[in-house]
Amino acid sequence: MKKIYLDYAATTPLDPGVERAMRPYFTAVFGNPGSLHRFGQEAAQAVYHSRRIIAKAIGAKTEEIVFTGSATEANNLVLRGLIQKSKIKNQSHHSPLKIITTVIEHESILETARNLEKQAVEVVYLPVNQGGLVNLEKLKAALDERTILVSIQYANSEIGVIQPIKEIAGIIKGFDEKILFHTDAVQAFPFLPCAVNQLGVDSMTLSAHKIYGPKGIGLIYIRMTGPISPIDPIITGGGQERGFRSGTENVTAIVGFGKAVELIAGRRQSEKRRIKKLRDYLWRQLKRIFPQSEINGEAALAGDGSEKRLPNNLNLYLPGKSAQDWCLELDLSGVAVSPGTACSAHTARPSYVIEAMGFAGDRPRSSVRFVLGRPTTKSDIDKTLKIIKNLTINQ
Amino acid sequence: MKKIYLDYAATTPLDPGVERAMRPYFTAVFGNPGSLHRFGQEAAQAVYHSRRIIAKAIGAKTEEIVFTGSATEANNLVLRGLIQKSKIKNQSHHSPLKIITTVIEHESILETARNLEKQAVEVVYLPVNQGGLVNLEKLKAALDERTILVSIQYANSEIGVIQPIKEIAGIIKGFDEKILFHTDAVQAFPFLPCAVNQLGVDSMTLSAHKIYGPKGIGLIYIRMTGPISPIDPIITGGGQERGFRSGTENVTAIVGFGKAVELIAGRRQSEKRRIKKLRDYLWRQLKRIFPQSEINGEAALAGDGSEKRLPNNLNLYLPGKSAQDWCLELDLSGVAVSPGTACSAHTARPSYVIEAMGFAGDRPRSSVRFVLGRPTTKSDIDKTLKIIKNLTINQ
Repeated sequence: MKKIYLDYAATTPLDPGVERAMRPYFTAVFGNPGSLHRFGQEAAQAVYHSRRIIAKAIGAKTEEIVFTGSATEANNLVLRGLIQKSKIKNQSHHSPLKIITTVIEHESILETARNLEKQAVEVVYLPVNQGGLVNLEKLKAALDERTILVSIQYANSEIGVIQPIKEIAGIIKGFDEKILFHTDAVQAFPFLPCAVNQLGVDSMTLSAHKIYGPKGIGLIYIRMTGPISPIDPIITGGGQERGFRSGTENVTAIVGFGKAVELIAGRRQSEKRRIKKLRDYLWRQLKRIFPQSEINGEAALAGDGSEKRLPNNLNLYLPGKSAQDWCLELDLSGVAVSPGTACSAHTARPSYVIEAMGFAGDRPRSSVRFVLGRPTTKSDIDKTLKIIKNLTINQ
Repeated sequence: MKKIYLDYAATTPLDPGVERAMRPYFTAVFGNPGSLHRFGQEAAQAVYHSRRIIAKAIGAKTEEIVFTGSATEANNLVLRGLIQKSKIKNQSHHSPLKIITTVIEHESILETARNLEKQAVEVVYLPVNQGGLVNLEKLKAALDERTILVSIQYANSEIGVIQPIKEIAGIIKGFDEKILFHTDAVQAFPFLPCAVNQLGVDSMTLSAHKIYGPKGIGLIYIRMTGPISPIDPIITGGGQERGFRSGTENVTAIVGFGKAVELIAGRRQSEKRRIKKLRDYLWRQLKRIFPQSEINGEAALAGDGSEKRLPNNLNLYLPGKSAQDWCLELDLSGVAVSPGTACSAHTARPSYVIEAMGFAGDRPRSSVRFVLGRPTTKSDIDKTLKIIKNLTINQ
């Protein structure tokens, strides 16, 4: 039986076009981009080509793209790198530096922020409402002259809720142009506009393996407004990536990343419509099978035009059973879904995102995430519905 | 005309066996090892399998292997991670922490050490002799109660000179068992014994792309002597790699790394003999063509049994022309060699390694590195010799 994968927010398979693009860079073009000779220069050109594709896709300059080993590293780089840089500038002052983020960020932001608190940095974690939207009044109240960074995700990996990044940028920049506004756009990129100037962000994290590219490669866009770098590196050495991230460039993965971005850009709108239709169909049918089920996070399924949720995400409260049990039973029946993010799947903790939305009781423990992807078909959804129906009848 | 690559210390092509091993992990087995379902578990098993192969190859426990995005990151992790951990423990003391390294380390150690000096860490850079061997008397003199780390490379990437790691471990541990002894074994691994207990090291860095594995993956072995981790992470988030390095595991590259290590282990001795013979032949013939040429670093070509130089490295002083010019001319003739390490190739600076060996004048600027590899044949060497002969006659 063909297994059905509905966990595309955790990771995605390589698009066959991406794999084809990468293949020559394993053995035929294998040089180190740092080498002067032609083997090296061919590799350097491939890296540059990808950098240009990606820069163009988000309206950035090529020198504003820094490739990293993962989106997690990219998020660490902006938080830790900015703090380190600012601490050196700030040595004569005694008041602690402040960063503002939200309670529902990805763990690479949350855990890093907690870590920085141990290094005398003040962190404000903005609350969210029951729909998962960040409280903007609290943001306004938190901004002050010590604030050097605001980091707010574009779309949440568990519930798919989209934050109003443009509006948030207006609030921050209206208070102080110099505050760095960072967004983690890993989940948003396949479906939402990510032109950095339109969004008004100063830095943005992307990941290849969430968009049918390879694992082991992420990037940070970082706005260059002058000759002075806004952040310090966290990994030093040979000075690759203009000194922002040392280590031999992962040429093959960078080539794959570029191709993956190119493929997204060419079909964002049509794919969004297709996936949204399938997701809405899954929800309507599921609600019939399981009338007590409820959507976690802004639904925005009605046609008011405003987008408050990614088109591929359906996070459901399915009362009566733990998320882990749901996932294991569905897995035995050949359907892969997740109790939250992959990173925390093993801990069997309740969802910190759903808790943060103000739900107590069993809801944070009994919510399951369905995430559709490029290979998902109507037949996959119908089979999934049939399996859930059987599980519900037999329980 | 087939181009000849003699820069295998900069990077290597994927071994076809490694590429075959990796292929299923792009699309067929693509899960996130953090996911509970079978897609995730298959990926987690693949990662574990590689971890076990590598642990076995160096006589370590699986939980002592931490995969990173590069060897540069691994070196940063041990230096920065240990300093961060020790600073927290050391907060009540006022004397600065001290680390000892050498003047000829890879830039991922040197640049990171310089960076730590700005954070109130004292760094001692041990000198080397004209052969490139570290001064052990200076090491003995530098060890004191503030010393928390000694980081000395196993073999140098520019000159291939091998440091007596076992003897150095004896000196350090004889002074104080608690000092962490780290070695960067990236260049040494294909040819030298790397069993960590025999070597007496507490941590060790390896890289896949220097051993016919993929780029974008490195690792650090770190000895676990108790429940308390000796180092703090530098990249935090989902807690992968037992919290030492967060970020989705680069499954495909980890699989390739495991296979590359397996392939090395199976043919280390025979390959070492084969390559050494070719390298010695290259040197004998080159010396005839260019009698003023001299080897940089311990030669150990005579048969006293002691190994002081990697079998694949020939770093030559070729007076009369800059290393950059040599490399460009050879490149035009189809032979890829390097003026030093790939990382610094673009800077056209004199070699800091050869300068550190006490050579002034044009030698640090006129030295060229030839590094042989697994695909190198006698015919490649003969063609290279012919090309050099023509260049020498025509100059």
